[in-house]
Amino acid sequence: MGDTVKVGIAGLGRMGRRHAENLAFRVRGVDLVAACSPLADELEWARTSLGAPRLHHDYADLLADRDVEAIFLVTPSALHPAQIIAALRAGKHVFCEKPLSLVQEECAAVEAEAARHPGLRVMIGFVRRFDASYQAAQQRIADGAIGQPFLVRSETCDQNDPSGFFVRFAPTSGGIFVDMSVHDIDVARWLLGSPRAIRVFATGTVAVHEGLTACGDVDNGVAICEFADGKMACFYASRTMAHGHETVTEIVGTGGRLTVGRDGRADAVEIADAHGIRTLTTPTFYERFADAFCREDAYFIDCVRHGVAPALTLADATEATRIASALRRSLDARRPVDL
Amino acid sequence: MGDTVKVGIAGLGRMGRRHAENLAFRVRGVDLVAACSPLADELEWARTSLGAPRLHHDYADLLADRDVEAIFLVTPSALHPAQIIAALRAGKHVFCEKPLSLVQEECAAVEAEAARHPGLRVMIGFVRRFDASYQAAQQRIADGAIGQPFLVRSETCDQNDPSGFFVRFAPTSGGIFVDMSVHDIDVARWLLGSPRAIRVFATGTVAVHEGLTACGDVDNGVAICEFADGKMACFYASRTMAHGHETVTEIVGTGGRLTVGRDGRADAVEIADAHGIRTLTTPTFYERFADAFCREDAYFIDCVRHGVAPALTLADATEATRIASALRRSLDARRPVDL
Amino acid sequence: MGDTVKVGIAGLGRMGRRHAENLAFRVRGVDLVAACSPLADELEWARTSLGAPRLHHDYADLLADRDVEAIFLVTPSALHPAQIIAALRAGKHVFCEKPLSLVQEECAAVEAEAARHPGLRVMIGFVRRFDASYQAAQQRIADGAIGQPFLVRSETCDQNDPSGFFVRFAPTSGGIFVDMSVHDIDVARWLLGSPRAIRVFATGTVAVHEGLTACGDVDNGVAICEFADGKMACFYASRTMAHGHETVTEIVGTGGRLTVGRDGRADAVEIADAHGIRTLTTPTFYERFADAFCREDAYFIDCVRHGVAPALTLADATEATRIASALRRSLDARRPVDL
Amino acid sequence: MGDTVKVGIAGLGRMGRRHAENLAFRVRGVDLVAACSPLADELEWARTSLGAPRLHHDYADLLADRDVEAIFLVTPSALHPAQIIAALRAGKHVFCEKPLSLVQEECAAVEAEAARHPGLRVMIGFVRRFDASYQAAQQRIADGAIGQPFLVRSETCDQNDPSGFFVRFAPTSGGIFVDMSVHDIDVARWLLGSPRAIRVFATGTVAVHEGLTACGDVDNGVAICEFADGKMACFYASRTMAHGHETVTEIVGTGGRLTVGRDGRADAVEIADAHGIRTLTTPTFYERFADAFCREDAYFIDCVRHGVAPALTLADATEATRIASALRRSLDARRPVDL
Repeated sequence: MGDTVKVGIAGLGRMGRRHAENLAFRVRGVDLVAACSPLADELEWARTSLGAPRLHHDYADLLADRDVEAIFLVTPSALHPAQIIAALRAGKHVFCEKPLSLVQEECAAVEAEAARHPGLRVMIGFVRRFDASYQAAQQRIADGAIGQPFLVRSETCDQNDPSGFFVRFAPTSGGIFVDMSVHDIDVARWLLGSPRAIRVFATGTVAVHEGLTACGDVDNGVAICEFADGKMACFYASRTMAHGHETVTEIVGTGGRLTVGRDGRADAVEIADAHGIRTLTTPTFYERFADAFCREDAYFIDCVRHGVAPALTLADATEATRIASALRRSLDARRPVDL
Repeated sequence: MGDTVKVGIAGLGRMGRRHAENLAFRVRGVDLVAACSPLADELEWARTSLGAPRLHHDYADLLADRDVEAIFLVTPSALHPAQIIAALRAGKHVFCEKPLSLVQEECAAVEAEAARHPGLRVMIGFVRRFDASYQAAQQRIADGAIGQPFLVRSETCDQNDPSGFFVRFAPTSGGIFVDMSVHDIDVARWLLGSPRAIRVFATGTVAVHEGLTACGDVDNGVAICEFADGKMACFYASRTMAHGHETVTEIVGTGGRLTVGRDGRADAVEIADAHGIRTLTTPTFYERFADAFCREDAYFIDCVRHGVAPALTLADATEATRIASALRRSLDARRPVDL
Repeated sequence: MGDTVKVGIAGLGRMGRRHAENLAFRVRGVDLVAACSPLADELEWARTSLGAPRLHHDYADLLADRDVEAIFLVTPSALHPAQIIAALRAGKHVFCEKPLSLVQEECAAVEAEAARHPGLRVMIGFVRRFDASYQAAQQRIADGAIGQPFLVRSETCDQNDPSGFFVRFAPTSGGIFVDMSVHDIDVARWLLGSPRAIRVFATGTVAVHEGLTACGDVDNGVAICEFADGKMACFYASRTMAHGHETVTEIVGTGGRLTVGRDGRADAVEIADAHGIRTLTTPTFYERFADAFCREDAYFIDCVRHGVAPALTLADATEATRIASALRRSLDARRPVDL
Repeated sequence: MGDTVKVGIAGLGRMGRRHAENLAFRVRGVDLVAACSPLADELEWARTSLGAPRLHHDYADLLADRDVEAIFLVTPSALHPAQIIAALRAGKHVFCEKPLSLVQEECAAVEAEAARHPGLRVMIGFVRRFDASYQAAQQRIADGAIGQPFLVRSETCDQNDPSGFFVRFAPTSGGIFVDMSVHDIDVARWLLGSPRAIRVFATGTVAVHEGLTACGDVDNGVAICEFADGKMACFYASRTMAHGHETVTEIVGTGGRLTVGRDGRADAVEIADAHGIRTLTTPTFYERFADAFCREDAYFIDCVRHGVAPALTLADATEATRIASALRRSLDARRPVDL
């Protein structure tokens, strides 16, 4: 393989466009040569905004594009497993947005297929692993700064969308823990040294969006995950915050505690006015992690260029789905689920 | 009853001395006329530090002191129920440090006795209800500032005592949730509008103090409590913090979130030096709540003086013990406990 | 002198009432036996709120009260020098609210009179020296935590009063630097080791309250003060803040920096809502320093009881007036003033 | 002019390399075609790190390079005026790192020359104008969020370099105000609506680096600048901070206050350990402004591509030098300087 990786992207929705722009303009060592979407307006956006990639309506055509070495999948979660497998069979490296799958069994199928293609790189986009602050925390832990880490408390809180737009997608999102907490689950495992989960308990409530009740989902969920060796994690996911998006992770060790992302400041500006002394918060996760998305794409491209297996493995992604699915079942039953 | 309440205090250990000093020097409308302890050095301290209260070795003698109108109990938790009941039968008002009891059944007995003495005031010392910041939060919630509150996340974290002194008391402390989280439980109920608990789940780990294993206790515990009407609470208790004591409570509502006590600053000094930009933390809960202890004592004295029933009821204290005990059982079984 | 100091207070306006309440109810070792005011409603307040002190219309009568050992002066600044001198001649200890005087010459007269009464204690109320956070900062500096301190940057910012009520008092207040910055001046000297001022420069602007122009005052003033040995201070005083009162002091040393009071939080509550993440600020200096006022009163009473000269001397108060007056002259001339 | 601007860079020291990397890899619409340095190792770095630009030892050769449309000057400050003029005469657009000059007269010469080449773009790199947080502050001010801004307090504080390396450059740096505060000066003017300075006063001290005394410079300087219409600015520059670099700017208006950059956090990680609760600080200005440098370069390239005059003008740069030079003179004389 030459110095530059030729990439085709599938899915040009909100997140797809961001990956596409990163690949087109911000990441070194990559050529975005093709883009694929079933939607005409998404392809039109690609045509005008990304230079001149080849455009495909069908994913099969993208895979048939011989010039494409690596696929970026930013498609609906339910499609991920089959699309990853198809790409591998077409001889392409695959970057896929999280989650690997909503269903644990499909994870195994993807892992098995990937094992048949040891020369192809596959990575699921757990973007927090590429955030400078999370990386600094991980490095400090590795350096022993907080002794032995044993507890992670992590939350993902989205600003409330009064329109309740997301309620429509609730039936296929996998539920709040699979959709949102999967990031916290992966971060917890990463920062605690990849322990094995043994038991989870979850509950939640519909505080605002009554429409979720019909599909058994909640807009605020809390959970506990027990790992082997006495390690633990607590998760909180909310879709109803008034002030903006906030992603916060606390790691408690025997010698100290690290907290990443407390307050989710939009910028370094502090306002003192009739509302007190205040900071504004990023409206969505994207402003918080924009730089990390770019670093994530660059990392995967570098892995492909240099023939190196990503440190973030499919097994990690499988474990995150396994735990998130168990949380969903615990929420349904209001009983702990042993793993 | 005259303008001034005549008080006798039982128990002159660390916390007892603080209540005694508040009553002697900082609270209006009270005369500390008697002090009781089985320990000679504690009585000696009372003699030299509190003016000249009458001194008693035996609690029975304190109760027989006709001049005493109200008893302050700052004795070991296991003695609380019997001592409260005895004081009521002796016709005394009673303030008792938390918890009401380690055992739910004893709570009922106290409540029943108190019901027989409607003219006597009884209050258990859940000090956070008297902290200016918690009160400001409660007032804001009552004013509708965060819409309908539905989730409390509350933690009590003590600075690690490397000597592990407290391990000796673990067998009789009731365990980490009864000893520490009972405050968080009471605060959660107070701020959520006194909902009824329906299910709890708890787990924990021994991160530092192996000696706790023998009595089934942990030095870091996490828990979830479900209330009726979809309200929830998450608790975290730790005895192993490196930086000091921290009591933090988050209240999430449909229209906003309040956080009380984040960072537990020792004072308003910020230090910028080779360790970064930093603040020091209060070493123990006492520095954090010193003013609240004083306001708590004053509130109870005012209730007695004006013949008003305390807003913080015995039923509140019973419910806190009921939930804390259930958390202990859940920790033992690693299974949810229905209430 | 016995164990308890008998005090008479003169002046029962806003601050006078607070000192009176401290002396009546919060400070040990003191009896508030007399109160003096030319205003009937102030005396009526004293009669109903302070127990039953003797009441005097005339300051001369207060001084003639043989039972009074110490005078607390909380009267208009212009009266301070003559009233202190009269009290000393009447054989009374004197606590006087800041400033000692608006005029440097009068300071000297007070110092001379005080020197004639070595057995009487005199102290001017620079309240920040009694604030727990300022004291912690001072102790850290004394412990060498920031090396050699060489720069203080200190600001006193009041919340804007849209009514401009204070404009009426501007002609007799001494101007913004004498009225407000005198606290910052004293703190700077205290924290820098009491250096001698050699030059000041000040300027300012009328940002909101045009009425100040007539008397040459400003509502926002900035200043630089040079001390001997290369030490420096910068001051900022404002009467027009939107968010509340804020008193902030930075001390920069060769080995670190301390900051006292950044953000002036009203309490430990953080609010996350549609306005972002925010804290409320104390509305006035009094909420910020309520505890310090009490400690200040207690300190002076202890000095009287134990016959100890206050560490905060009249010379300190004179130097603060000397510097503040020079700042006023510099503001008038827009030229530096050498001292 | 085509879609892409062909750039040559002069100066490949620390900052030069950063601009070069931005131009080579991070900015769209630009080709870095040439690099110039008198130093062999800098050219070698360019050869291996920037792809394959043409390399020049002499600035004259760079100007003679017909392919080059725009020059980026990251050379010693004293060379800026002559090099800008030469580039303009060679028909090149010019981006030049701050300051325009150490000497006000040279600024005029550059402005005059630029006026003769209306088709060429010239911009001085006041990087803070391109920082997202400063831009957010500026936008909020423009939106009226703080009423009428009238005071800027701005500081630039560098972490102490115990080796005192910079002392060697003190004789040619222009002094602390020209070297460091020129950024604060420009920001103050920008945020206050470009007012005209009428008077400055400055002082300073040598707190750590005695070697500065020989050339009349200081390692900590404070200053006041008065503008027309009652606007004011206060500056603080330090080379001796223990905790890292910190750039902070407060803008006070009649309706509120904005603060940019308080605490200069290195990342979103908070550490709670034996040193308290703390955050680390960026070690140098570069980490703080890395993104702004990239946006600055991109802005200038866009101005060239689209034939638009930069909003940041040579007159702005001249005014910053004029004020900074006056501060230097005031520091020398310890007297105000009228402008």
